[in-house]
Amino acid sequence: MAKVGTPKGTRDFSPEVVLKRKYMFDVMAQTFEKFGYMPLETPCMENLSVLTGKYGEEGDRLIFKILNSGDYLSKVPEDLLAEKNSRGLVPKISEKGLRYDLTVPFARFVVQHQNDLVFPFKRYQMQPVWRADRPQKGRYREFYQCDCDVVGSESLLLEVEQIQIFDEVFTKLEFEEVLIHINNRKILTGIADAVGELDKLVDLTIAMDKLDKIGKEKVLAEMGERGISADAIAKLPPLFDLKDEDEKFNYLQNLLAKSEVGQKGLEELKTVLELSRAQGVERLFFEPTLARGLDYYTGTIFECKSETGGIGTLGSGGRYDNLTEVFGVSGLPGIGISFGAERIYDLMVAREKFPKELATITQALIVQFGDETLIEDLKLAKLLRDSGVSTELYPGAVKMKKQMKYANQKSIPVVLMQGEEEVKNGVVTVKVMANGEQKELPPGKIAEFIQSL
Amino acid sequence: MAKVGTPKGTRDFSPEVVLKRKYMFDVMAQTFEKFGYMPLETPCMENLSVLTGKYGEEGDRLIFKILNSGDYLSKVPEDLLAEKNSRGLVPKISEKGLRYDLTVPFARFVVQHQNDLVFPFKRYQMQPVWRADRPQKGRYREFYQCDCDVVGSESLLLEVEQIQIFDEVFTKLEFEEVLIHINNRKILTGIADAVGELDKLVDLTIAMDKLDKIGKEKVLAEMGERGISADAIAKLPPLFDLKDEDEKFNYLQNLLAKSEVGQKGLEELKTVLELSRAQGVERLFFEPTLARGLDYYTGTIFECKSETGGIGTLGSGGRYDNLTEVFGVSGLPGIGISFGAERIYDLMVAREKFPKELATITQALIVQFGDETLIEDLKLAKLLRDSGVSTELYPGAVKMKKQMKYANQKSIPVVLMQGEEEVKNGVVTVKVMANGEQKELPPGKIAEFIQSL
Repeated sequence: MAKVGTPKGTRDFSPEVVLKRKYMFDVMAQTFEKFGYMPLETPCMENLSVLTGKYGEEGDRLIFKILNSGDYLSKVPEDLLAEKNSRGLVPKISEKGLRYDLTVPFARFVVQHQNDLVFPFKRYQMQPVWRADRPQKGRYREFYQCDCDVVGSESLLLEVEQIQIFDEVFTKLEFEEVLIHINNRKILTGIADAVGELDKLVDLTIAMDKLDKIGKEKVLAEMGERGISADAIAKLPPLFDLKDEDEKFNYLQNLLAKSEVGQKGLEELKTVLELSRAQGVERLFFEPTLARGLDYYTGTIFECKSETGGIGTLGSGGRYDNLTEVFGVSGLPGIGISFGAERIYDLMVAREKFPKELATITQALIVQFGDETLIEDLKLAKLLRDSGVSTELYPGAVKMKKQMKYANQKSIPVVLMQGEEEVKNGVVTVKVMANGEQKELPPGKIAEFIQSL
Repeated sequence: MAKVGTPKGTRDFSPEVVLKRKYMFDVMAQTFEKFGYMPLETPCMENLSVLTGKYGEEGDRLIFKILNSGDYLSKVPEDLLAEKNSRGLVPKISEKGLRYDLTVPFARFVVQHQNDLVFPFKRYQMQPVWRADRPQKGRYREFYQCDCDVVGSESLLLEVEQIQIFDEVFTKLEFEEVLIHINNRKILTGIADAVGELDKLVDLTIAMDKLDKIGKEKVLAEMGERGISADAIAKLPPLFDLKDEDEKFNYLQNLLAKSEVGQKGLEELKTVLELSRAQGVERLFFEPTLARGLDYYTGTIFECKSETGGIGTLGSGGRYDNLTEVFGVSGLPGIGISFGAERIYDLMVAREKFPKELATITQALIVQFGDETLIEDLKLAKLLRDSGVSTELYPGAVKMKKQMKYANQKSIPVVLMQGEEEVKNGVVTVKVMANGEQKELPPGKIAEFIQSL
């Protein structure tokens, strides 16, 4: 027998799982749409010229490459083959790769279609991406990303609406403990400036980004290793221990008094916090040490997690000055957020947060007794379906027990039976599986009864 | 600037297109679900051991192969490289490929999860597939398939419900002229039997399958080339010219009088036609020369097209005795149908069959006048969104003209304005873009007004 597994790190989604995932994605999509974001879909494969060089050397390695069709070796230089130069051969035998994230394809889309788009352009995208990473618990080689971006505006109102989106989705999916941690890259720039290490901003950011993982002491040590002066590092510790929001703002107002960019960052952050709270969002947490790894962020940055950690990051995002610079097009600032869909799903499963009705689609099973009542069964099935009730007629007059077992295993809530006696009397026996109750109803009343359950 | 196109034969789906495609797919999905079919999703990549050998030699060539990660050349035999043996090298440097259709992954899924599934197992699947075919008008390298199958039952009631599904989908999508052409492979077997060429059944089927493309004379010629005797061929012409259904049945009853399998086919077909018509399906057309290319069909076969041709095949399918035989598991008969989603979509676009409201998601745009009224604008946006109205607040107090242009270009049906005067009076100016009408309404009345449009 042939090997019948899925490739390592990929999964089948059985119907029960698809229904749950769809529930989660629908909550996200409906929220995005409420704010005027529209769905976009890009191809699963992109030209390697589009993907390569956008994710760092490690990222390039993790892109799944697609082998060229036909006689792909014919024009390959002999020496690459003789040397068995795997890396050098890739660009000669592969022109396409599987999408590694949704951001680069989005940037490519915006550049390619820039003359047809209406700006500010608001789009969301929920599609799979692929990474040739080592699979482990909760990490897959094929997984969904779920992004929501707007490009073509610098307005802070977009920060506010994306915060509202985070808040609404986490409320609907019952993640009460998730806080939207917020900071502004300009504040980090101001800090680097204030401690006299502006040219080490990237190193400071990279070290700071590890705070959740390695803790304050190791972050400070790494800053030293990255060439930030002892003097500068000595000024940083208070940052990590600021208690409430007032204390944070007071401390930073002071520290950043002479940094123009730092002041701008503080001002932006205040506006965003104020306006968001005025919209009823309470789960906001100003974290002045929040850094985010990606270097294209230039303003507000977000990370959604519980204050005390423990469940990982369920969402993130931030403002960028230029999404499309990598493709040579400038002047398109924007902001985007992303939900950690796979992690959210796994947590919702563990916490049993999915509605129970999601177990099945079929609302009624008609038991088949035989040819004598078959025409009546078909009529009843059509009547129910035409009334919007998902209905199955068991495809064979097998033993009653087997048909009931089918209904049970598929969690079908209602079973319908009409023998010759019932047909004669113009009624159907309706059995509610949850409590075993049975009653007789005329065919015309059944849809309404089922919908009322 | 880097090259920013999508790979040849693949497409971006802009938001307007996604909304239309979603409308079409939703009609299909809702119909499948009405009959108790549940959604399944499998990974985009499969092991090549699963895919290879299932689609013929040509199919194997058209599978997109994924290059192995890491130092993929290290264990490759030197001679393959020295010879530049492209074909021989594939299995050494590639273990995975992109899904070529949805049937083989479905069979793989059923085999892999057979102990967890409840049979009869009814699933639908709407996902992209990839073929390294030469792209041309209407033919893509990445395209969606849309399949609906049930395995684990031989009941003809499944034929009937799949016919009902075809009928309902084509009715809802307004393809009045589409007929469900139907035949039964057992009838073809009976014909081969009756003309004394049972061992040439495959050749007869392959030739017959080309009827739409090459016409009767060339089909008969091809049969001769394929070694079917002149005597046998001489008996076939009447088949192509039978007028109404009675004539077809009469002729075949006669021709197949001594063929047991042929009689069985006729009987099955009669039952299916009768029961389907009793369910109100009228668009059925018995075509005794319908053959369908795939050799795994064993009973009923379908092809949905207009009687006179011209729009191509919009759906097809049939009964198979054993979906999973290729993976060594037998005893799983079933039936499946498939919609030609890309072709249906292209025709719906050409015929302007999509509802106009699909142009946008945003129902209202709030014009921004400046900081004085910003808080009121944010409040209004929240009020509307909480009432289920998709609302955008223009992210910047730019010139009125620019904001109106944005609403126009995005086909947003209603624009809302509140200057300081309106805020003072507790009203909002509501402009309906379709007719330019304006009126003042209190904020609390706007959602209802928009929903009533």
